[in-house]
Amino acid sequence: MSFSRLDQLRLHVADDACILISHPINVRYLCGYTGSNGLLLSTPDKAYLFTDTRYEIQCEQECFDVEVVMAKAGLLVSALEYLTCNELSIEAAHMSVATREAIASAKPEVNVKNTRGLVEGLRVVKDAGELELISAACAISVAALEQVATYLRPGLSEREIAQHLEHTMLQLGADDKAFESIVATGSNTAIPHHQPTKRVVESGDLIKIDFGAKLDGYHADCTRMFVAGQPAEWQTELHSVVRECQQMARETLRSGVLAAHVDATARDFMKSHNKGHLFTHGLGHGVGLEIHEDPFFSRQPTTTIVEGTIVTIEPGAYIRDQGGVRIEDTVVVTEVGYKNLTNFTYDLVTIG
Amino acid sequence: MSFSRLDQLRLHVADDACILISHPINVRYLCGYTGSNGLLLSTPDKAYLFTDTRYEIQCEQECFDVEVVMAKAGLLVSALEYLTCNELSIEAAHMSVATREAIASAKPEVNVKNTRGLVEGLRVVKDAGELELISAACAISVAALEQVATYLRPGLSEREIAQHLEHTMLQLGADDKAFESIVATGSNTAIPHHQPTKRVVESGDLIKIDFGAKLDGYHADCTRMFVAGQPAEWQTELHSVVRECQQMARETLRSGVLAAHVDATARDFMKSHNKGHLFTHGLGHGVGLEIHEDPFFSRQPTTTIVEGTIVTIEPGAYIRDQGGVRIEDTVVVTEVGYKNLTNFTYDLVTIG
Repeated sequence: MSFSRLDQLRLHVADDACILISHPINVRYLCGYTGSNGLLLSTPDKAYLFTDTRYEIQCEQECFDVEVVMAKAGLLVSALEYLTCNELSIEAAHMSVATREAIASAKPEVNVKNTRGLVEGLRVVKDAGELELISAACAISVAALEQVATYLRPGLSEREIAQHLEHTMLQLGADDKAFESIVATGSNTAIPHHQPTKRVVESGDLIKIDFGAKLDGYHADCTRMFVAGQPAEWQTELHSVVRECQQMARETLRSGVLAAHVDATARDFMKSHNKGHLFTHGLGHGVGLEIHEDPFFSRQPTTTIVEGTIVTIEPGAYIRDQGGVRIEDTVVVTEVGYKNLTNFTYDLVTIG
Repeated sequence: MSFSRLDQLRLHVADDACILISHPINVRYLCGYTGSNGLLLSTPDKAYLFTDTRYEIQCEQECFDVEVVMAKAGLLVSALEYLTCNELSIEAAHMSVATREAIASAKPEVNVKNTRGLVEGLRVVKDAGELELISAACAISVAALEQVATYLRPGLSEREIAQHLEHTMLQLGADDKAFESIVATGSNTAIPHHQPTKRVVESGDLIKIDFGAKLDGYHADCTRMFVAGQPAEWQTELHSVVRECQQMARETLRSGVLAAHVDATARDFMKSHNKGHLFTHGLGHGVGLEIHEDPFFSRQPTTTIVEGTIVTIEPGAYIRDQGGVRIEDTVVVTEVGYKNLTNFTYDLVTIG
C-alpha cells in the first residue's frame, strides 16, 4: 500500500479527528479533482470528495484516494452528514466566516479546530511528477521567449507583445498562461506589477517581460529584460546590479539554507549599491499548483529551504517615472545547490 | 456631488459602522482598484484602500472615492489602525476564519457583524458603462465564433479549437478569455463542464462551444452547437428541444419577473418532453465583473429580476456516453423584455 498525500495529511491531526479541505488547489493536490465545486472530507477510515453532477464523469476520470459523493443538498450539508468525529480540523486561511458559522449551527457538538498551512506544507517539496511538469512548463516558457525575442521591435504595443507571447506558449504545448503576463515598456517598467497597455515600444525603452506557461495545473515564472537600441548608462548600470544580485541570491540556494539568509544576501547587495530602497518587493516564492505558494523568502524568514522545493529568485529595482529592472528564474533546490529551470540569457538583450 | 457606489453601500449599514471589504472583485467595483492585494475600509467619514508599494502607481491611475494607504505592516493591521467605529461589518462569505480571528484578537472591543451579499446586491443592476463593456465583450465573442465556425472541421482537436477561438477573441480586442473555454466533441458533449482534450472532431460528432471574451474586467458568456456532417435523428431532436426551451425561458424575461418562474418555465418544458432528468444544472446566472454572479435563477428562486440586470439563459440536456446540448445567451433585462447581447444563429450548424 502506498503512502498517499491524504495519509501524509493525517499525520498532522489527531487519530480520531476529521479534516475538511475547502481550498480548491489543496483539494486537487490531495485527490486530483480539478472542478470548481468540491469539498474534501478526510475521516479516520476513509476520505470523500463532495461535488455536483456537472462533474460526475470528470471525477471518474481524475479522482484518486477518495470516494466521490454527488451532493444533492449542497456540498457542506452532505459533507457534514459523513462526519464521524467530534473534532473537525478546518483550513482557517481558506474557509469563509459564513461556512464556519454554518458548521457551528448544523453541528454545535463538534469541536472545530483551525489549522493553517497543513496541505500547503505538504506541497512545498515536489515529487518527480510535479518536477517534470514544472520543468516542462519552464521549457515551454523559455522557448516562447526565444521566439518573442526575435519578434520584439519598436512600434509593437505591450498588449501585442503579451498576446504574441501567450499565443506562442499555447502553440508550444502550454495549457494556458501561468498568470497575466507582465509586459512593460519604457517608464512602465518602473511599475513592478504592470498590466500591459497600448503603449508601444520606442527607441531607448527598457522592456520587462515577466511571464510563464501553465501545464496540467503547474506553473512557470520567469522575468527577463530587453532594450530597444543602445542602452543608456543608467539602464546598463541598473540591469547589471540586479543581475549580479539575482545571481548572488540564487547561488546561496542549497538544501538547509534559511530563507532569511537568501533574502538578506539580495538585500544587502542592493544596499551596498545604494539601491536597497529601490527593491520594494519580496525576493521570491514557491511555485507549483499556485503561482505564488510557500515558501516565501521575505515573508517567511525562518523557513528552512529543503531539497525538492521549487522557488523563484526575482530581485528588482524600480526608479519611479524612469524605469525598472527585474530578473527572475524558477529553480529547484537540490542537496548541494540548485538547478535552474528557466535557462535564458541574463544579458540586457538589444532588440530592434 | 455624485452618489457613489460607496455611498450606496453605506445605506446598508448603521451610520456609525465601518465596513471592511475584502473580496477583490467587490473592492474593484467600489473603488476601481484591480491589483491582487487590497483591502477597502469604509468609515462614516471617509473610505480607504490599503495595498502595498507594488501597486502605488497603479492606484494613482485607477482608484476613485478612496484614500490610498501603502500598508507597511500588512493590510489588515493597517486597516484596523484606521478603524473609527465600534461596529465593523465584514463580508462573511469572503473573509477567512483566520482573518476574522485576527480582527477579534487585535480589536476585542469591536463588534464584528457578518454581512452577506451587500456589494453583490449593488452589482446586480448594471450602469451604462458596465452595459457597454459587457455588450462589447459579447460582440467580440460572437464575431470570434463566426470566424471559428468557418474554421471548424473534422480532424481538429478540442484544444486546437479552443486555442483558435481564444486567439481570435484577443485579435478582435478582448483582454482575455472570460473563463476556460469549453470545447467538447462527440460523447464529451455529455459532460456539462468539459475541459478541452486532444480528442479530434470525427464525422457525426456534436460540438459544444461554451465560451466568452473578457473586456476591462467584464465578461461575456455564450454557448452554441455544431455538428460534423449530417446530424443523427437524436441529435436533431435533442437540439431542437433545448433550443425551444432556451427561447421559452428567455421570453419570460422582463423587469419584475420572479427567478423561479423563469426557471420553472424551462424545467417544465423539458419535463413535458421527458427530458427533465437530463437538465442537470442551473438555468442561468448574472454576468458582470464575475462570470457567475447574482442573480442565480435556480439557486435564488425568490429573487425578482429587475431592469438592467445582465444574465445568462442556458438550459441543457445531457445523455451519458452519447452526447449533450446546451444553448446559452447573455442578455440584458429591460422594462418590457430583454435584449440579447449574443446574437448568433440558434441552428445546429453543420460544419466540415
